[in-house]
Amino acid sequence: MIKVGIVGATGYTGVELLRFLVLHPAVELRVLTSRAEAGVPVAALYPNLRKYVDLAFTAPSAEQLNACDAVFFATPNGTAMTMAPALLDAGVKVIDLSADFRLKDVKVWEHWYRMTHACPELLQEAVYGLCEVNREAIKGARLLANPGCYPTAVQLGFLPLLRAGVIDAASLIADCKSGVSGAGRKAELGLLHGEVNESFKAYAIGGHRHLPEIKQGLDLVSTTPVGLTFMPHMVPMIRGIQASLYARLTDTRVDLQQLFEDSYRGEAFVDVLPAGQSPETRSVRGSNHCQLAVCRPQGGDTVVVFAVEDNLVKGAAGQAIQNLNLMFGLPETTGLNVIAALP
Amino acid sequence: MIKVGIVGATGYTGVELLRFLVLHPAVELRVLTSRAEAGVPVAALYPNLRKYVDLAFTAPSAEQLNACDAVFFATPNGTAMTMAPALLDAGVKVIDLSADFRLKDVKVWEHWYRMTHACPELLQEAVYGLCEVNREAIKGARLLANPGCYPTAVQLGFLPLLRAGVIDAASLIADCKSGVSGAGRKAELGLLHGEVNESFKAYAIGGHRHLPEIKQGLDLVSTTPVGLTFMPHMVPMIRGIQASLYARLTDTRVDLQQLFEDSYRGEAFVDVLPAGQSPETRSVRGSNHCQLAVCRPQGGDTVVVFAVEDNLVKGAAGQAIQNLNLMFGLPETTGLNVIAALP
Amino acid sequence: MIKVGIVGATGYTGVELLRFLVLHPAVELRVLTSRAEAGVPVAALYPNLRKYVDLAFTAPSAEQLNACDAVFFATPNGTAMTMAPALLDAGVKVIDLSADFRLKDVKVWEHWYRMTHACPELLQEAVYGLCEVNREAIKGARLLANPGCYPTAVQLGFLPLLRAGVIDAASLIADCKSGVSGAGRKAELGLLHGEVNESFKAYAIGGHRHLPEIKQGLDLVSTTPVGLTFMPHMVPMIRGIQASLYARLTDTRVDLQQLFEDSYRGEAFVDVLPAGQSPETRSVRGSNHCQLAVCRPQGGDTVVVFAVEDNLVKGAAGQAIQNLNLMFGLPETTGLNVIAALP
Amino acid sequence: MIKVGIVGATGYTGVELLRFLVLHPAVELRVLTSRAEAGVPVAALYPNLRKYVDLAFTAPSAEQLNACDAVFFATPNGTAMTMAPALLDAGVKVIDLSADFRLKDVKVWEHWYRMTHACPELLQEAVYGLCEVNREAIKGARLLANPGCYPTAVQLGFLPLLRAGVIDAASLIADCKSGVSGAGRKAELGLLHGEVNESFKAYAIGGHRHLPEIKQGLDLVSTTPVGLTFMPHMVPMIRGIQASLYARLTDTRVDLQQLFEDSYRGEAFVDVLPAGQSPETRSVRGSNHCQLAVCRPQGGDTVVVFAVEDNLVKGAAGQAIQNLNLMFGLPETTGLNVIAALP
Repeated sequence: MIKVGIVGATGYTGVELLRFLVLHPAVELRVLTSRAEAGVPVAALYPNLRKYVDLAFTAPSAEQLNACDAVFFATPNGTAMTMAPALLDAGVKVIDLSADFRLKDVKVWEHWYRMTHACPELLQEAVYGLCEVNREAIKGARLLANPGCYPTAVQLGFLPLLRAGVIDAASLIADCKSGVSGAGRKAELGLLHGEVNESFKAYAIGGHRHLPEIKQGLDLVSTTPVGLTFMPHMVPMIRGIQASLYARLTDTRVDLQQLFEDSYRGEAFVDVLPAGQSPETRSVRGSNHCQLAVCRPQGGDTVVVFAVEDNLVKGAAGQAIQNLNLMFGLPETTGLNVIAALP
Repeated sequence: MIKVGIVGATGYTGVELLRFLVLHPAVELRVLTSRAEAGVPVAALYPNLRKYVDLAFTAPSAEQLNACDAVFFATPNGTAMTMAPALLDAGVKVIDLSADFRLKDVKVWEHWYRMTHACPELLQEAVYGLCEVNREAIKGARLLANPGCYPTAVQLGFLPLLRAGVIDAASLIADCKSGVSGAGRKAELGLLHGEVNESFKAYAIGGHRHLPEIKQGLDLVSTTPVGLTFMPHMVPMIRGIQASLYARLTDTRVDLQQLFEDSYRGEAFVDVLPAGQSPETRSVRGSNHCQLAVCRPQGGDTVVVFAVEDNLVKGAAGQAIQNLNLMFGLPETTGLNVIAALP
Repeated sequence: MIKVGIVGATGYTGVELLRFLVLHPAVELRVLTSRAEAGVPVAALYPNLRKYVDLAFTAPSAEQLNACDAVFFATPNGTAMTMAPALLDAGVKVIDLSADFRLKDVKVWEHWYRMTHACPELLQEAVYGLCEVNREAIKGARLLANPGCYPTAVQLGFLPLLRAGVIDAASLIADCKSGVSGAGRKAELGLLHGEVNESFKAYAIGGHRHLPEIKQGLDLVSTTPVGLTFMPHMVPMIRGIQASLYARLTDTRVDLQQLFEDSYRGEAFVDVLPAGQSPETRSVRGSNHCQLAVCRPQGGDTVVVFAVEDNLVKGAAGQAIQNLNLMFGLPETTGLNVIAALP
Repeated sequence: MIKVGIVGATGYTGVELLRFLVLHPAVELRVLTSRAEAGVPVAALYPNLRKYVDLAFTAPSAEQLNACDAVFFATPNGTAMTMAPALLDAGVKVIDLSADFRLKDVKVWEHWYRMTHACPELLQEAVYGLCEVNREAIKGARLLANPGCYPTAVQLGFLPLLRAGVIDAASLIADCKSGVSGAGRKAELGLLHGEVNESFKAYAIGGHRHLPEIKQGLDLVSTTPVGLTFMPHMVPMIRGIQASLYARLTDTRVDLQQLFEDSYRGEAFVDVLPAGQSPETRSVRGSNHCQLAVCRPQGGDTVVVFAVEDNLVKGAAGQAIQNLNLMFGLPETTGLNVIAALP
């Protein structure tokens, strides 16, 4: 059994990790840390876990965490980078669901996250955990940077086109929509039900932190510099990300449907819908699947890719467990065999 | 493997049956019937089942259904009663999620359902599948009447009090609230998002068909005649039932918390919250659990019981599978190990 | 023109006051106070008021408030009682939307609100502003205690029955459901969209502060002591209160429909639906109307009354303006001629 | 008083027309037709109109409609074109909220609407009622084609840029999101609460009928041919449209904020937000306002315009009344002085 700890287990990605890990056949949950809730039984905070979890939250303890085989960080940005080095020294594998290790360029990171990075020397070693792209590197990773929710959907959608070299990389547009849980479990006015329900808006229009992460991933495969307009919107629902991705085709003879099906053939968690269908976020709610579709409106030279995922699962906790499976030599789907409940 | 068929698999309880059955380790899905969707792949109608179900819907065929070990009916009222006799004759066990076999008194049934019953002779044999109450009878059942959604919650809430004889059975009040999926997947104006979202109301105020079903169940354990006011309300959400149950205590010395904990000790799917807590429907969304709580406001002589369940799971498909497990000698929780996704 | 000020204008009842007052033909808005938002234009915080309000919020100033003819308090409990005496001395009429002046018995108030009352000597003078009940007293009021949201609906529903003496006052049950805005605009985890959407629960099960307010109002008209179980629930919607009120009839010959229609004949804002209909909260969303219906399920001896209102309008800001109209000799409907937008 | 009739008054745009018209000081409602609901009081179908409307729906009668000064069509596509000629002959002004008269090219119309047009000879006379663009022509119109909901938002957003000639007209992208009421009040499975709530998707990805309407409007002001990708999405809310409009700047020196403010200065119902703000649909819910904002992400050469409106008001009934006002020489805002209720 893999002995697992979670640092910062009280947020939305934390409770999602728990939902999957308590039924994961190869995992033994050892320690769930939360300074604020130390001593509180997990099931008191999250009654959905009654009958499944007997543990209580504890204050972070190096001794307990060092005794784990793997530690997940479901913490705000800036925490994992202060604790990861010691854990790695103790031989613990680290899976960071925050943004601390996602960017390779420390200057870009510090610009967007407005902090000094605590261990820039680890940025190059950290493996970016977009499983369908980095599978082999992930298998050998000690330090895993789990991708952001938007970056997962946007990269999975654009990569086949960029790899095939059939679009103008200079003017990509990603119009993305997310449920409110993407902002986390924070007592902020802007996240109140009364503020977000029955309304829709773009947000972070001055620039969202996932922009450099997406751009870094796309630049890796593009032969020409990527120019990306990334615009996030908030949907009055709890879970789900939908991305509508627009690009100008430089080659209109390509069979787009074939290209996408070939790109993801054999993937357990990425699925290309038949031509003409549009994916809905509910079809993947609570599950680790990403569904894609591609079309060319009115047969013009604009290609549109649609991607949906559950921001808390494939966009966070689920992909983190997919990474855990890869890092420990397990079948990639272990513990992730959950079907979206519809309706 | 238990060979299973579903008649009427395209509705909300049908797709829920599928969600659980495709991962059930002892079940082999053989036939999913739908006249309207015959020939359509299941995953085309329900994209959440892509990668999990390869079957297509078929028109009902006696031959195919007779070859099953068990057949679920997820049909409108009035269908199961026409097909069940032949299936039983063929040695197939029948689990009916509709109301055809729930009431013992055919006159009461015909009054509320406004049809002539097709096989009243089977009403006495049919076993009412409220697992926590009828477990032994269910194990031997050929014909299983799966309880209604409201009746499951209301009976589980009132039964400990009636069995203990500590309330006035003559004036019970069940103020119940349900998500919209309880009305099924029907193209009706009253179920449109535009008609039900951001609104709340009581409905069926002239009398709801679950009233006689609840009353029948409560009368079985009450030493005095049950008088029940049952009032259903529609909540602008998809899933979930919450029942607030009110009764006048005839014995105010009883330890209500203890009574409830004793009543459901050892149950896998019924859970009594600690005193002072109020159950939320989201804690059991998508799972087969029912959570209960009991309190005595201001220490008066009114007792209030709260019950929550997912109307499509413990109130329909989940309990049906729990019954299947009992009928086939499997552990009761087989295939039902699903945790509510929160938030 | 009536010169009007609002203290604490940034909350949900504050912005609702503004929505009505800026179009009120006899009102001139003079001062909107908010310590936290002093200097911020109202329309920056509430873009729905762009083109309608040019004012900015200001820190509270005795001089400015004393120059008003009427001051509304849309503040948390405990603020109005510290400022009202000076305003009254300055000849300003005070309309308090908080709970500071709603209860006559200071001990009961201090028990439920867990504060020492700052001016108990004003409690007897304060007029309880349930317009349809206290109209004449309101016309002469200097200090107006605007009713709570639940108490408005529950009292309007129970009063005809209690006045007619046809129910057992000792065992009333009020099962009430409210949209989330009833909790105000506060940065609390429990009010996040992620916490309340797609879920339903009872809350404050240990006792809600509106209980003594309702009981005080019912006791005034009942010839026997009122025993009330009041249970609030949270609905995943923004606005609206629905109350299902249960009582045992002591006289089953009374024509309930006639009783209710007679009770509210001629009222502009209270409306009794035809027999057999159930009111929906959306029919009064954004408007100052309360809709009622009454029925006797299965012709038994339990009467059920349904009441709906918009908690922020008839349950707060709208009724406060109705009171302003009465206090200043205007037609009661002035400035309140708003129809619910449906759907 | 303007004598007004509504044909097809039972849908969502019909009831919205009523909400405004019953309080419109210059309008007298004379006839509301509905074949299906003939004889039913309006307030029985729409309880929000109790106390405001005493009329009942009637079957369409030429005599009654001919006696009106103006007739609104809130009908499905294909009805107005069969009745408009006779009404115009009788001297009645016609305001069509359907699509029958929106396109000038009958071939394009027949291609997208899959019907033969009944009176193509009227297409040239019909005035397209986008008030801020066509004000003078509207004043003299006999036959008014009220714009579609998406076309209103998209045109108001793109027009300043196209008029100024600062964008590449060949590759415009309109990523639009609408509440569910945009699909009307129809008993269709796809519009059920259970199907659309807590989910988000693109729809009509093969081509939406509003595309040619938008293109026609943009082509009128563009000096080069317009190439537009228009992608509609469905938001799990009742009302509201948000459009995120993307274009490539050909002139990056233009002061975009100034351009937009100048374009709509003096407009009562179009409002440009201060730089850096993002409009929310809730700020205009139930009101006739359209709010716009413009930005240039990361200072690049892509301009993004955001537009929000209530699809049933500025996108339908409200704009229709704005057109009525213009056609009858009334101040444009008459009867439209309604503020969005927030939250």
